[in-house]
Amino acid sequence: MSTVNAYAAHSATDALRPTVIERRDVGPRDVLIEIKFAGICHSDIHTVRGEWGEASYPLAPGHEIAGIVAEVGSEVTKYAVGDRVGVGCMVNSCGECVNCRKGEEQFCVKGNIGTYGSVDRDGTITQGGYSTHIVVTEDFVLRIPDGIDLDVAAPLLCAGITTYSPLNHWGAGPGKKVAVVGLGGLGHMAVKIAHAMGAEVTVLSQSLKKQEDGLRLGADHYFATSDPSTFETLAGRFDLIVNTVSASIDVNAYLGLLAVDGALVNVGAPPEPLPVQAFSLIGGRRSFAGSLIGGIRETQEMLDFCAEHGLGAEIEVISADQINEAYERVLASDVRYRFVIDTSTLA
Amino acid sequence: MSTVNAYAAHSATDALRPTVIERRDVGPRDVLIEIKFAGICHSDIHTVRGEWGEASYPLAPGHEIAGIVAEVGSEVTKYAVGDRVGVGCMVNSCGECVNCRKGEEQFCVKGNIGTYGSVDRDGTITQGGYSTHIVVTEDFVLRIPDGIDLDVAAPLLCAGITTYSPLNHWGAGPGKKVAVVGLGGLGHMAVKIAHAMGAEVTVLSQSLKKQEDGLRLGADHYFATSDPSTFETLAGRFDLIVNTVSASIDVNAYLGLLAVDGALVNVGAPPEPLPVQAFSLIGGRRSFAGSLIGGIRETQEMLDFCAEHGLGAEIEVISADQINEAYERVLASDVRYRFVIDTSTLA
Repeated sequence: MSTVNAYAAHSATDALRPTVIERRDVGPRDVLIEIKFAGICHSDIHTVRGEWGEASYPLAPGHEIAGIVAEVGSEVTKYAVGDRVGVGCMVNSCGECVNCRKGEEQFCVKGNIGTYGSVDRDGTITQGGYSTHIVVTEDFVLRIPDGIDLDVAAPLLCAGITTYSPLNHWGAGPGKKVAVVGLGGLGHMAVKIAHAMGAEVTVLSQSLKKQEDGLRLGADHYFATSDPSTFETLAGRFDLIVNTVSASIDVNAYLGLLAVDGALVNVGAPPEPLPVQAFSLIGGRRSFAGSLIGGIRETQEMLDFCAEHGLGAEIEVISADQINEAYERVLASDVRYRFVIDTSTLA
Repeated sequence: MSTVNAYAAHSATDALRPTVIERRDVGPRDVLIEIKFAGICHSDIHTVRGEWGEASYPLAPGHEIAGIVAEVGSEVTKYAVGDRVGVGCMVNSCGECVNCRKGEEQFCVKGNIGTYGSVDRDGTITQGGYSTHIVVTEDFVLRIPDGIDLDVAAPLLCAGITTYSPLNHWGAGPGKKVAVVGLGGLGHMAVKIAHAMGAEVTVLSQSLKKQEDGLRLGADHYFATSDPSTFETLAGRFDLIVNTVSASIDVNAYLGLLAVDGALVNVGAPPEPLPVQAFSLIGGRRSFAGSLIGGIRETQEMLDFCAEHGLGAEIEVISADQINEAYERVLASDVRYRFVIDTSTLA
């Protein structure tokens, strides 16, 4: 066991502050990663503030991790010291259930082990990426291809896979019309990835404020959802709508934008139930669906895809002492499009 | 134009009674069908009682029609006098839109023309199968294979295709676990068809009252949804759930019965919106979807499939003067499993 520098929450209401956390010794199948960059995800804020259930403190969040392998266990075969690697939302799973065997570890029947705030298999509480080092079993370590800088790669480990997976699963590609609801941390990656997949991409955003950005990132069209005519103009248009907005939306209005066999896929989950008119689904064999990050194999596929297409996140790099301010700006949607912590500032 | 005997509603509140309705002359592409049997669908009751919007009276309902070709127009190529044929929920569509061109006429962008109570392309109001004859363009006439008696074939034209289509679309077959919610007119066909497709079939019914029937019809398992332990026992079990119940159900409870990538498909539409927890969808990449009858090509495929597997509806044949009583029994779920009118009693 060793202690490493971190930035952590000590209660649901206090600001995060510098601290030290413990990392386990490197086991035979473990990889010790020197973290270089860690993205700030909205989930981090929900979790440390106890909005998704009681948290265990002190808690260092962060599940968008990019770094360099500093040490490997005796049985590690996939990675070597010096490799460029990443860690996403999971650091373990049972490995034996039907979903793990299919490579869908995010749906592990026993529950996957989240990168922070989860009970690990050794009984300790996991600590995330707002720290200088992390120890992870090699099966949950991803390779970051040379083509992507580590800072813009970090957000791919959550925002990238969370949007790549539904786009991939529901067949975004040439000839398909894809809409992305919300142009934030997830939405901007959805636009880039869907465009790179060859789909015709439309952004559906509250206003036209970020229209120029959206088109630059790869969108073909940009509409304001605050304008009711948008829902008439685009009726029956899309094969797939990826909704990245966690606030409640009028599901039936968005279902009306789907073509026959279209799917509206939520990647966020508002706490309150969403009222769905069954007729909105029946009149076009439409689906209202959900998607949760992606499995390890698919996450690697996403990183390779992003490298091949030169995709990374649009980021604002900050030092650790700016984390609390960044949280407020995330809540105010004042970031284009992801904060990434330079973890050398934790030293 | 000629007049034919029918049984029709004359207002939303009166009982149906014998009347005469008009049928158009047989045009070049029309088929005149001597109706032998007409099924009673719950939709008939909703429509004539004005529960789905104001109806035009007198209105003869009926969209589960089986009969014999009595005359064909000069340009008809698919049918000849004496052929055994059926008509389902649609008698026309635009034929030109993207969905019609794909053979999904039920999703015609201009709206398909329903078998009764719709404005036909000539401006008249369509009249349904509770009558002795009907004139339909050959493109909306189905062939009933010799292997199925006309009386048990009639309900296939709505109850059959409404359940076959989602089972087919969502891939029911060997190795797939399918649940059918509700064992009524639609549900009993869903059980027969899913079983014939090779799926493992479970009936989810309010009580165990019809368990013996369900197992006889092809179900492998039968559970009562009034027993809360059902939802624990079957958690994460099914690849596909076809919900044939039009009353509101607890969607989130049923979503919990789906395996990863499973779909809950509604074929009925309760008027009030159904509250859906996005997390029920996200935690397993599940879908809540809808399905509406099926296209003409798929309806023919369904009839051929049923003939090949010796499937017909379980029916109770009635005379026309029993229609009003039958309506009350349908509303009381007191029919196993479909009333079929012997239209010779309209003479």
